Formats: sequence, C-alpha cells, structure tokens
Amino acid sequence: MINYPNGRKTCPTVEQKTGKISAGGRGMELEKEINITNKFYLNSDIAVIHKKPTPVTIVHVDYPRRSAAKITEAYFKLPSTTDYNGIYRGRYIDFEAKDNMIVTAFPLKSIHEHQIRHLDAIVRHGGIAFVIVRFIKRSETYYVPADKMVRFVRSTERSSIPYDWFKENGILIPSSYTKPVDYLKVVDQLYF
Amino acid sequence: MINYPNGRKTCPTVEQKTGKISAGGRGMELEKEINITNKFYLNSDIAVIHKKPTPVTIVHVDYPRRSAAKITEAYFKLPSTTDYNGIYRGRYIDFEAKDNMIVTAFPLKSIHEHQIRHLDAIVRHGGIAFVIVRFIKRSETYYVPADKMVRFVRSTERSSIPYDWFKENGILIPSSYTKPVDYLKVVDQLYF
Repeated sequence: MINYPNGRKTCPTVEQKTGKISAGGRGMELEKEINITNKFYLNSDIAVIHKKPTPVTIVHVDYPRRSAAKITEAYFKLPSTTDYNGIYRGRYIDFEAKDNMIVTAFPLKSIHEHQIRHLDAIVRHGGIAFVIVRFIKRSETYYVPADKMVRFVRSTERSSIPYDWFKENGILIPSSYTKPVDYLKVVDQLYF
Repeated sequence: MINYPNGRKTCPTVEQKTGKISAGGRGMELEKEINITNKFYLNSDIAVIHKKPTPVTIVHVDYPRRSAAKITEAYFKLPSTTDYNGIYRGRYIDFEAKDNMIVTAFPLKSIHEHQIRHLDAIVRHGGIAFVIVRFIKRSETYYVPADKMVRFVRSTERSSIPYDWFKENGILIPSSYTKPVDYLKVVDQLYF
C-alpha cells in the first residue's frame, strides 16, 4: 500500500509532481475509475489494457538483505509516452487521461509535446489513440480522438482548449458501476 | 543518471532484485540492445515500441520544494505484464526478454505465471506476442512465439526448457550495429 505524508494513497499526478496540486486530491479519481474499468475489461476477457508504471529515476538502492532491495533515493520522471495502452478486438489501443478543474477550458500544459508526438505516431501506425479529459466540476468525461487533439494543438497559439471545443469534437463517455469510464463503448461506435 | 552502489548504471533485473545476481552484470546487455533497436525503429518511423518503466511501490516522498519531490522509500514490485509493448504495421506487439547464463536450459522461474497468462491473453485477442531468450554463453538470441512457450509451460512438470527446444521452436534473431536485436525481421517472416 502506498502512503504519502499527506495521506494520499496513490502516486502523485504529473500536475502534483510539478507542484500544481489539484484541489482535494480529486486528480486521482479519473485514474482510479479507469483502473476499475480496465480490470473489468480484463476479467471479462474483453480487452487487455493496463496503466504503465509511474516512471522514476532511481539514484540509490540499499541491499540490507539480498532479497529486499530498498530504494532510498529516486525522482519522478516525465513520461515519454502515454499512461495507458493495450489491445482490444485485435487493435492497438493507446491513450492519455487528464483531470481538469477548470470549467471553461483545458490547459494545454497538461499534455506534453512528446505525448502529442507519441499519439500522432500511433495514429500514423494504425493504432486507436485518444485522450480522455474530465471536466471535474461539470462531471463530464470526454473521449477525444488523438488526431483532432493533435491538429488543434499544432494549429494554435492558445495555451488552452475551450470547453465548447470538447462539446463539438469530443464524445461523452458513458459510465456504469462496473465500468465507471466505459471508453471502449466509444471505440466500438467509432471503429467497429 | 542512475547509479547503484555496485556501480551498475541501470535498474536491476528481476533476477537481481530477487537476489539472483547474474555474473558480471551481463544481464543488462540484452535490455540495452533491445532499447537501442527500439530507438532505431522509432526514429526511422518503423514501429513505436517502448519498454515499460520498472514498477515500484512508493512508500515515502519528501517535498523539500514543491518542484522537486524526492522519493525516499520505495520497493521493486513484480511486473504484472511483460516489459515491452507497442505497435508495428498496425498490429499490437507484446513481448518479454530474458537473459540466460545457463548453457543447456532456460529456467522457467525466469517467467512468472502472470506473465504467461498475459502473453496467452494477448494471443487470444489477436496481438503478436513472443519471448526473447538469450543464451549468453552461446551468443544466441531466440524469438519464441508466445503460444509455443505457453503450451510448453502448461504441459510440463519440468522446471526448465531444454536448449534443444529453442533450436526446434525458436527463431534466431538477426543482429546488426543499428539493430542489435532485430526482432521485427522475425515478425515480418511470421506475420507479413
């Protein structure tokens, strides 16, 4: 079990790592819900999609016993790809998920340039790539096809994407008790 | 840069983590060579295949400054999937890579039961899954289709796979300066 000094139970998000702590630790809800959904997909043999481990740079390891290496100095590292990938109906699936506390827009600094490049490459190679963006205060979670997100980011000088853009270009992701973020339903609509 | 007390520059392998340190740290060569190969594939826009970060359980984080979180207590965790995945020619690719110092056999304890289950699931969902096994002392690196490995493991009481089995069921992976472990050449032969 992971226990942070501030009582959080899971790894900090990139926003938290870089000092922009989201209010009330709500930044973790989306990740938790996606993990529950992925577990349901896996246990029902619908898809095999996992979150990648949080990348850390390990600087020092103690070996008090050979069987129990203890990392005593490490740092969070910016991920070079997206957080989630796997396979569904024979297709490669790849996505990033972002919580957003702002009501009117989604700040582009939440998605790093190398993640945009990665999503673009996945689309080029025939994969299904997208970004999940949750507007926390609206309780709305959008599926945004990666090509649309990439095109917007590359054609704008803006530092954020307005909320209305999501209503136009995104698709609301349905939610149920066993599948709180049922994004494969949207994939079914779009690709199958 | 990662610096371990014993002078190793990268993360320990599972074998090393569990106390079975391979002689001379050679256990890292295969991983390094696969990373070089993957970088070549990526930079040439041939495929997008990455190694997943080493999974660690984070127990304690210090925040001396908000901008620099320092992990002061963490432990290596057994991976629940394989180490590498990505996309090639529209297909989902998933594999595990294992160094082996023994000349006559490959010990089955190197591959965990949940990794076998994972490989089996990937095959069932239409992905291209395999295991790369290097016999270090023979300088031979084999591509083993996951379904063959899974079938062997599930039908045997043995604790290892004999070397001859690899000669019969595996395919030698070609090597070049820019692509030290050119496993996609084997994928081409088998699938395209």
